[in-house]
Amino acid sequence: MVVAIVGAEHVRADAPSLAAYGQDALGQGHPPDLVVMPANTQEVAAVARLCNAGRVPLVVRGAGTGYTGGAVPTSGGLVLSMERMNRILEIDEVNLLAVVEPNVINGDLQRAVEGVGLFYPPDPASLDTSSIGGNVAECAGGPRAFKYGTTKRYVLALEAVLPTGEIIETGSKAVKNVVGYDLTQLLVGSEGTLAIVTKVTLRLIPKPPTQATVLAMFADIQGAVDAVSALIQRRVVPAAIELVDDDSLRAVREHTGQEFAPPGTGAVLIVEADGTQAAVDEDIDRVARACRDVGAMRVTLAVDAVEREQIWSLRRLLSPALKATGLKKINHDVVVPRGRVPELFAVIQELKARYGLRVASFGHAGDGNIHVNLMVNPAAADETARAKDAERVLFERVVALEGSISGEHGIGFAKAPYLGLELSADEIALMKRVKAAFDPNGILNPGKIIP
Amino acid sequence: MVVAIVGAEHVRADAPSLAAYGQDALGQGHPPDLVVMPANTQEVAAVARLCNAGRVPLVVRGAGTGYTGGAVPTSGGLVLSMERMNRILEIDEVNLLAVVEPNVINGDLQRAVEGVGLFYPPDPASLDTSSIGGNVAECAGGPRAFKYGTTKRYVLALEAVLPTGEIIETGSKAVKNVVGYDLTQLLVGSEGTLAIVTKVTLRLIPKPPTQATVLAMFADIQGAVDAVSALIQRRVVPAAIELVDDDSLRAVREHTGQEFAPPGTGAVLIVEADGTQAAVDEDIDRVARACRDVGAMRVTLAVDAVEREQIWSLRRLLSPALKATGLKKINHDVVVPRGRVPELFAVIQELKARYGLRVASFGHAGDGNIHVNLMVNPAAADETARAKDAERVLFERVVALEGSISGEHGIGFAKAPYLGLELSADEIALMKRVKAAFDPNGILNPGKIIP
Repeated sequence: MVVAIVGAEHVRADAPSLAAYGQDALGQGHPPDLVVMPANTQEVAAVARLCNAGRVPLVVRGAGTGYTGGAVPTSGGLVLSMERMNRILEIDEVNLLAVVEPNVINGDLQRAVEGVGLFYPPDPASLDTSSIGGNVAECAGGPRAFKYGTTKRYVLALEAVLPTGEIIETGSKAVKNVVGYDLTQLLVGSEGTLAIVTKVTLRLIPKPPTQATVLAMFADIQGAVDAVSALIQRRVVPAAIELVDDDSLRAVREHTGQEFAPPGTGAVLIVEADGTQAAVDEDIDRVARACRDVGAMRVTLAVDAVEREQIWSLRRLLSPALKATGLKKINHDVVVPRGRVPELFAVIQELKARYGLRVASFGHAGDGNIHVNLMVNPAAADETARAKDAERVLFERVVALEGSISGEHGIGFAKAPYLGLELSADEIALMKRVKAAFDPNGILNPGKIIP
Repeated sequence: MVVAIVGAEHVRADAPSLAAYGQDALGQGHPPDLVVMPANTQEVAAVARLCNAGRVPLVVRGAGTGYTGGAVPTSGGLVLSMERMNRILEIDEVNLLAVVEPNVINGDLQRAVEGVGLFYPPDPASLDTSSIGGNVAECAGGPRAFKYGTTKRYVLALEAVLPTGEIIETGSKAVKNVVGYDLTQLLVGSEGTLAIVTKVTLRLIPKPPTQATVLAMFADIQGAVDAVSALIQRRVVPAAIELVDDDSLRAVREHTGQEFAPPGTGAVLIVEADGTQAAVDEDIDRVARACRDVGAMRVTLAVDAVEREQIWSLRRLLSPALKATGLKKINHDVVVPRGRVPELFAVIQELKARYGLRVASFGHAGDGNIHVNLMVNPAAADETARAKDAERVLFERVVALEGSISGEHGIGFAKAPYLGLELSADEIALMKRVKAAFDPNGILNPGKIIP
């Protein structure tokens, strides 16, 4: 029995717990029948064998900050909460890597490695609450992905438990490894459907000596989009190019008591540069010039680390602020080829007009990865229905723009019905066979990714 | 019939052709029964269906420059040579990407994109002869992988044909994509055992405005190794840190009529920096100081592009020069965590002494990825046997150093017997199930990777 494996004090079956573990940041889901909190890899393997033998759905949960329901059951079963496996096991300054248990919080790891002059680039807006294991499961990105890439670029090796109970180790501590199939990269972004990650070895880089952040203010969204195009055309590659539209600015103003920019600002770009002082100065100069050339109202440089952090904390407040509107926030993280951001915003304008919805958009413009939030009042007649229609049109348009329906958040169960918009029947059938190669009985996170 | 698919003029069955297509740079292999040269994806799919129906081994071949036999049959069958699919289809300056057919030569692509101010970093020593399709199949690296990563970091999307004939498209032109399993990354490095890549979409970056190359000369290998450690410790991350040992220097001197460094030089480091002029100047200064601090005899800076290219062309001549010794060159590309390069060279010294072999070592020291060449005179009594013993000990030591038996060249059939040194039985069994998910009848490149 599972109690014998982890101890009674690490099993929950009370209604409040089951309700709590039946939801993540999506705010939907189904309560599990049991919540189990293992202490180590052997306990994880024992629980997996038990679930596999009994054909019990097994859903792995990190910090529960996901937006697509990846960490919650669709039909009961057992939630394996990794919350007790939360230690930084090793920060190796010689080999520039860290070894962590899955529930280390991203921000805690960043602070720990920066303390010794190293740097872990992936910085999802949830960095102070999301876990490395969850970041690996979804392949989390963040603003700095523009220059540094997403989580997958930093995962060197994984220890994982197969749903049938075998413990595997993928990759190695070497930065190159072509021995056999790249199971490490296959597991990153697999949303807990293939294996249970129990240990993560991450590549680190030297901390950039200098960072600088610019806030560019525009009269309207078009100005900001033109600036993004100008930066791409001029081949300026700072660390981050973030865009915030007027609806998002309004939400921050109304619900945080703070503001990015004076009223009348229709959109802002947040651009961060890092590296040597000389390189940063040159980047900032080119960024400011590009923004002014396309008609920025104002371009301001954060004077110090405090002001930098204020800007980025506001950026991270966007999602909470939109939630605080009281409207239902249907959050999509569509992505298009970076040069097609103007076309994506044309689609967003079309959706606003055609469906009479409030749509707040912000995000990683440099990557073509925009968080498009359909803001819905469930009480208002047919607004939910209109949002559903708008959602499908958005996804269709993004695929037509040679983009993808998710750049960071994954599919979970929320987007599973739309998988066929982007993948062919042959591709989905192949993914099902890959899934079966790992999980012959389909116990691991059923109902996710594949409809 | 296959002739009906590609036309008689694109099928070879004559003995010289079969012999030629039965070898790659490894110099071993088995001749195919037939060589087929398709013109497009549809022809590839038709040939695959035919082979699958007849259970005929199907071996995909690019430029045949691989070192582990990945492109040659182990037991006859059909070689599908991609040589006619060699067009650059698209260089997209707005979205910073290129779309190519598999047999575009790496160096041709580099020159083409640099012509419009863009940059494709992966630079295997074979860049003037190896194909992008082959680079993708093996996940090729090269000196610049130290700063820029290997091929996998640049592959955004693939068109591929399954051995059962379905045409799939993985990834997208967006730089982020987490829709379903990352089949793109799974196919990169899969050595033609899972699918036949017919189109590659590559991410490009802006061309670094400046490059500079330093040649540091040391009295012995220890000095060069100490310099690598110093650079890692000081967190200097130039574009490339290459090491060349005395046996390799000797081979260049004796067989190319050129030389890296005056006689008496026991080892050299080639360090390249790129970026803005200011950043390059700073990097070069730190590199030179680090090399002098550990006792470099001489540190010289290439004065211009011509001198830079001389240094790099010599670097690329190392393998041909070692081949020209007339000895059999058993080439291994082992990799260790970057800080453990000194321990790896201690192992190499031990092997030289213990087995009385000439061992020439050079390569990507910054990545911990060293090409260890056992130089064998097959005529000399039991030298081949001693090399076999040395090879196994080398692999065992590398795994003990938390490294990997291959960083770039892959497993093919040459290293397949050693897979179990690095991977557990459970891991190999899982890889076999993944293989079966793509290739149920096992027709694609049989005998490769998995013993």
